[in-house]
Amino acid sequence: MPLADGEGITTEELRLAARNHGMPLEALRHDVTPVGLHYLLIHYDIPYVDPATYRLMIGDRQLSLDEIRALPSVTRPVTMECAGNGRAALAPRPISQPWLLEAVGNAEWTGTPLKTLLEGADGVEVLFTGLDRGVENEIPQAYERSLPFADATADDVLLAYDLNGAPLPPQHGFPLRLLVPGWYGMTSVKWLTRITVLQEPFDGYQNATAYRVRQSEDEAGTPVSRIEPRALFVPPGVPDFMTRHRFLEPGPTTLTGRAWSGHGAIASVEVDTGEGWREAELGSEHGWRAFSFEWDAPPGEHVLRCRATDTTGRGQPDEPPWNLGGYANNAVHRIAVTVG
Amino acid sequence: MPLADGEGITTEELRLAARNHGMPLEALRHDVTPVGLHYLLIHYDIPYVDPATYRLMIGDRQLSLDEIRALPSVTRPVTMECAGNGRAALAPRPISQPWLLEAVGNAEWTGTPLKTLLEGADGVEVLFTGLDRGVENEIPQAYERSLPFADATADDVLLAYDLNGAPLPPQHGFPLRLLVPGWYGMTSVKWLTRITVLQEPFDGYQNATAYRVRQSEDEAGTPVSRIEPRALFVPPGVPDFMTRHRFLEPGPTTLTGRAWSGHGAIASVEVDTGEGWREAELGSEHGWRAFSFEWDAPPGEHVLRCRATDTTGRGQPDEPPWNLGGYANNAVHRIAVTVG
Repeated sequence: MPLADGEGITTEELRLAARNHGMPLEALRHDVTPVGLHYLLIHYDIPYVDPATYRLMIGDRQLSLDEIRALPSVTRPVTMECAGNGRAALAPRPISQPWLLEAVGNAEWTGTPLKTLLEGADGVEVLFTGLDRGVENEIPQAYERSLPFADATADDVLLAYDLNGAPLPPQHGFPLRLLVPGWYGMTSVKWLTRITVLQEPFDGYQNATAYRVRQSEDEAGTPVSRIEPRALFVPPGVPDFMTRHRFLEPGPTTLTGRAWSGHGAIASVEVDTGEGWREAELGSEHGWRAFSFEWDAPPGEHVLRCRATDTTGRGQPDEPPWNLGGYANNAVHRIAVTVG
Repeated sequence: MPLADGEGITTEELRLAARNHGMPLEALRHDVTPVGLHYLLIHYDIPYVDPATYRLMIGDRQLSLDEIRALPSVTRPVTMECAGNGRAALAPRPISQPWLLEAVGNAEWTGTPLKTLLEGADGVEVLFTGLDRGVENEIPQAYERSLPFADATADDVLLAYDLNGAPLPPQHGFPLRLLVPGWYGMTSVKWLTRITVLQEPFDGYQNATAYRVRQSEDEAGTPVSRIEPRALFVPPGVPDFMTRHRFLEPGPTTLTGRAWSGHGAIASVEVDTGEGWREAELGSEHGWRAFSFEWDAPPGEHVLRCRATDTTGRGQPDEPPWNLGGYANNAVHRIAVTVG
């Protein structure tokens, strides 16, 4: 994928790319993304938190980590994706973390359902505040975002303290984070310090200014919310170090990958190896859904494509729709392969 | 740090930056880098290896993972740094993985000393071959590199199978890698499949063409080997999301960081806050060496600098010396801070 506007990545974008980790796409082969391969987007710095003195404030209650860990616990696999995944392919390119396609991961998260902690409360929204602090658009702030009350109290929303069976690593929100399955990653506030039930909508930076789908700054736009459907290939064959172009032996090969959607289950995945769209075989579901496609690779240059449709009928566009922040670009995955 | 040549990062560089993880510099605060924050440079794809059928070949011997784990084991903290760390600051910028300063980590590695497995052997070099395959400079290859025989049989060289007390994650070379303390990371071949004692020098790509310090392709140059001294700050204060510029409250603050060298122990670290170079206090040594410096931060714009000297007398240049591959740039760390 060339940079869409023909212009190089800036120093600011490179600084972000040097900090924020993508998941190398060959890691799609794992049902559960190993720690250290899951994508990371960290707005400010990773804060240091002492678990012994840590307290979560919910309104005027304070809970220690031991108290939270003593509550009923649930473990579930959840595919998380950054709202900016695919941003660097948009033209003109919105300037922020320049993700290509790697901002995804599928982990097993353990925590306690949030809704039991909000029992008896009522409000319009719930605000989640993290311990990470910085400046964004000249506004000093802690990272914080709100959710509509009904979404915050949905059955599957967790206060998560374990990742893949071990305490959260610092970079994933140690000791406690919000986990909102099906929503883009900015929703799942890390290093959670405070939960506040609001009687009117939150107008802070991350809800009112950032993370809105809009064409210009004059427009209010719509909030970024649930993850759009996407299918990605495990890149077949072997790569060139520099270009990442793929080389494959001719003959029968199994193309594999994963698909997910925050709106519903995956209904189908299609693959095009140059002969039109064909149905792929769906495999196990564990957070994301595996797919495979048998291909008798003929010598030559090929472009492979895959796309997912979910049970709500949502699919993937051939070309990415543009928006100011570069959010939710779920255009069809293309991989160029030299067979020979 | 601006991109030195004023030109944007290319698509190829961005693809590499999206895969290869840097360590966010605030992680310098950890004595041992948590899994998932250690830097990663992976030439081709992360290979999948079944530990049950895995065998290491040493000449014509085969060893299973259980057999290797049954050998005497050693655990040691080792600071590893990519030879290309700092490449993106060189002018003109060598095109490869565009590291700024984040390609470092300090982990606790467990494994068995290699020299006992090479007892009785003699040769000029030892060749280490990985299971990762790809194309580089149009040459299909497995990643493999040789070491002079004396370096390969040094006391501290390990065949490592654990990282921070757990089996290597896939991205760090599971199930077995070479670990050569003090040498740049390309030396410590991951996904190790074969060890071969050579009676003459290896002339493969990664030794003869890549990883040589030289000014032009006509020149043979000298091999990249041991890590040059470097000190890096934990960035003080809080960052701007986009620019990573730092903001700090006025008054007394402790500047901290880590220093390391592959040539010898750290002898001193100096810090300049704008009033000339002053000695920093050295702290604990655990792989890298901690340092700290008390600063009464006055309001205004400041550039902070730090630099290390090791016991061999090697230090850090103010300006990076250029070479074709962009290797071993250990120029002094500078951080711009707004106090107010």
